[in-house]
This record gives sequence, C-alpha cells and structure tokens, in this order.
Amino acid sequence: YLDATRGYGAEIVLTDDIQSAFEKADELQRAGLALVHPFDDMAVAAGQGTVGLEILQDLPGVTRLYVSIGGGGLIAGMATAVKASHPHVHLVGVETRGADVMAQSVAAGRLIKLAEITSIARTLGAPMASPMTLDHVRRLVDDLVVVDDDETIAAMVHILERTKTLVEPAAACCLAAARRHVAEFQPHDQIVILMCGGNASVADLAKWTNSKSRNELPE
Amino acid sequence: YLDATRGYGAEIVLTDDIQSAFEKADELQRAGLALVHPFDDMAVAAGQGTVGLEILQDLPGVTRLYVSIGGGGLIAGMATAVKASHPHVHLVGVETRGADVMAQSVAAGRLIKLAEITSIARTLGAPMASPMTLDHVRRLVDDLVVVDDDETIAAMVHILERTKTLVEPAAACCLAAARRHVAEFQPHDQIVILMCGGNASVADLAKWTNSKSRNELPE
Repeated sequence: YLDATRGYGAEIVLTDDIQSAFEKADELQRAGLALVHPFDDMAVAAGQGTVGLEILQDLPGVTRLYVSIGGGGLIAGMATAVKASHPHVHLVGVETRGADVMAQSVAAGRLIKLAEITSIARTLGAPMASPMTLDHVRRLVDDLVVVDDDETIAAMVHILERTKTLVEPAAACCLAAARRHVAEFQPHDQIVILMCGGNASVADLAKWTNSKSRNELPE
Repeated sequence: YLDATRGYGAEIVLTDDIQSAFEKADELQRAGLALVHPFDDMAVAAGQGTVGLEILQDLPGVTRLYVSIGGGGLIAGMATAVKASHPHVHLVGVETRGADVMAQSVAAGRLIKLAEITSIARTLGAPMASPMTLDHVRRLVDDLVVVDDDETIAAMVHILERTKTLVEPAAACCLAAARRHVAEFQPHDQIVILMCGGNASVADLAKWTNSKSRNELPE
C-alpha cells in the first residue's frame, strides 16, 4: 500500500501506533496542513453521503443497504443522505468481531474504547467511534451485524473468484452479513451491498486463506 | 472454475487430456449438440471481433492494441474488425513461453504442434493453431511477442493490487508485453491492452506468487 500511495504522489510519515499517528497528525495540522479525519468530520461524512445519493440514483427502489463501519463516518453520511428521502430503506451496519467498536458502543449506550483490534479487517479498526458517529448510528441505522473473520474471508474469496474484483475484508464483511439475512429477504427486495475498499495484497490473500479454516460459502 | 461453471447451469464432462476432450466433443456433436470451438470457428471469431468494434467506438484514436493468442480465434476476429477501418493500428499478438504455438508456427511458416504446454497460462495452451487463425495472424498482426511466466505474474499482481481486478495469466501477459515496448511508445499513442479472462483462483495466486522469484514491475 505504501508503494501505491507514494506512487500517487503522497509523502508518508510512519508512526508506531494509531495513537501516535493521531498525535503526529495534530502536530502537522498545527504546522498548517489540513487534517482529513478518517471518520469524525461532518464534511467528510457529508462527502461520503454522496455514495448514498448515487445508490438512490442508480436504484431508486433499494430496500436494504449494507455498509461497513470503522469509526462510523461513512455510514453516518450515507444514513443521513439515504434516510432523508428513503426512510424505509433497511440500513444495516456491519463490523467484524474484534473490530466492533460501534456495536459495543451501541450496546453499552456510550463510547467504548477497544484495547486492541484483533480482526483481520484492519481498516475497520478504529479503537473508538465519536459522539457524532455514535449518535447517527443510534438514530438512523436499523441493524448492526458483527461477522467473524472466517465468514469475511469466505465472502472475499467468493467476490474475487466470481466477480474478479479484489475487495478488502472491511468491505467483504458486508456480503458476509447479507448472507446471514438470506432467510429474511423478500422477493421484492432490492439489496445493495457497499464494497468500499480494496486494500489487500496478494500476500494478504495468501496469508488469510491459509491461516483460516476457510468456510466455503454455501450456494 | 468447475463449481462456478456448474453454478451458471452447465453440465460438465471431464476427460483426461485435451485430445480426448476434442474427441468427446465430436461425439457429443454427432449426438446433436452444437460445438462451440475455442478458436477454429469463423462465427466465433466474428463474434469476438465485436470486441474490436467496441474498442474503436470507445477509443477511435487507438494506435496500439495488445491481444493474447491461444489458438488465435480472438485475435483473428479482432484483427479483421479493427484493420478493416483502422489499418494503421499497430496490432500486437501476445503469448507466453511454453504456450507459444502461434509464434512458433509463424516462424516456421507452417502449423506447429506443441507436445506440451509448460506455461502457467493454461488458457493460452492450444497445442495447435488452425489454418484459418494462422492465416489471419500472418496477414493482419503486426508483431508477435512471447513473454515469460515471471513477467506475466508480476503484471497480474500489479493489475490486481492497483486496479483491484483479477485477470488470469493469459490476459496479464498483454501488459507484460506492453511493458517491453515502453521505450517505443510515442506521446500521441493511445494504447489498449485487452484483458480477456479471469480464470484464476486464490489458490492459483498463492501458488504462482510463491513458486516464482517474483519480479517486481519497475515503476
């Protein structure tokens, strides 16, 4: 990823952990750079909300929508955009076990901080949501699903081999969640599963498919 | 692949090798089924030629076109379609070493039969071209390039990690061939690299990237 990011023109500053990364980002911000927060920023969430508007444009009859949750910025924006005009869309937020800070926070009724991210879905691994994102999820998201890494890997392999598209676990988990709901689906349902993120290398794929007792998806 | 093919509704008959597969296909044809030959059929080649027409529609200024060659049906159709209206497009046919029956046949001036396909690009592994395809390639293809499996794997990984699209070696070899020509490219060139085929499993990827001393693509 670093090579690719540099290839697109970025200068990368590496830190030891996520805490020091945020500290470094604060420091750079004070030095005059703009901080693009990964989730706790109304402007970023609003921008991500346009994904929801595009879905409504392409599929006005959408009835169910699966969106993954890291810190919750994407789903906050999408929920606001979609529910404003389509309040009856059943919106499902998805996390993986071990990167499920939002589900834990909603269950506890307050912001929970994860000591450690144990899921392979690293890009869902925000250690903490924010008041803004927790509030949006509580008000606008109909259902939260936490899936296991095994289900997520099986979904990722299925997507890669059948649609020839590489998505990362943080995206594939949405298909895994939808598969859990198959029995609930109605003939009139129009289902959208948002696939956001393809940060996975061939080495990652090899590691994940070897280290897990891979569950084949049932047909 | 078998699961996927069955999933799309096919009944699969397996044979021991490609020779007995063709014999079985002949038998089924005599029993009343239609044979869709993988390359030696003018109707199939004409259908594949529509890929060329679509390229001309999308990019009328195309100057270079890379197409892989198995038995040569795809490139025969595309060459006919493209050269009819755009004779100056530089058309490059691509094979991998060990699956290069067309390059060997053109060099020898007659149809060569390969005793064995040693390249990982199995879907390029026609043991023999046909009079029809050899004739089209000799008349209409400007250049034949044979790349190595290592270059092909590096190109395949590059395509997967950067564009998130899974293509098989039989397709990725076209990018590998284009990379060999980078020094020849002109500023006005509009280059199309046909990516036809995504028959690769995650297990294949792991095997290929482990077994080869992977050549990273130069930037």
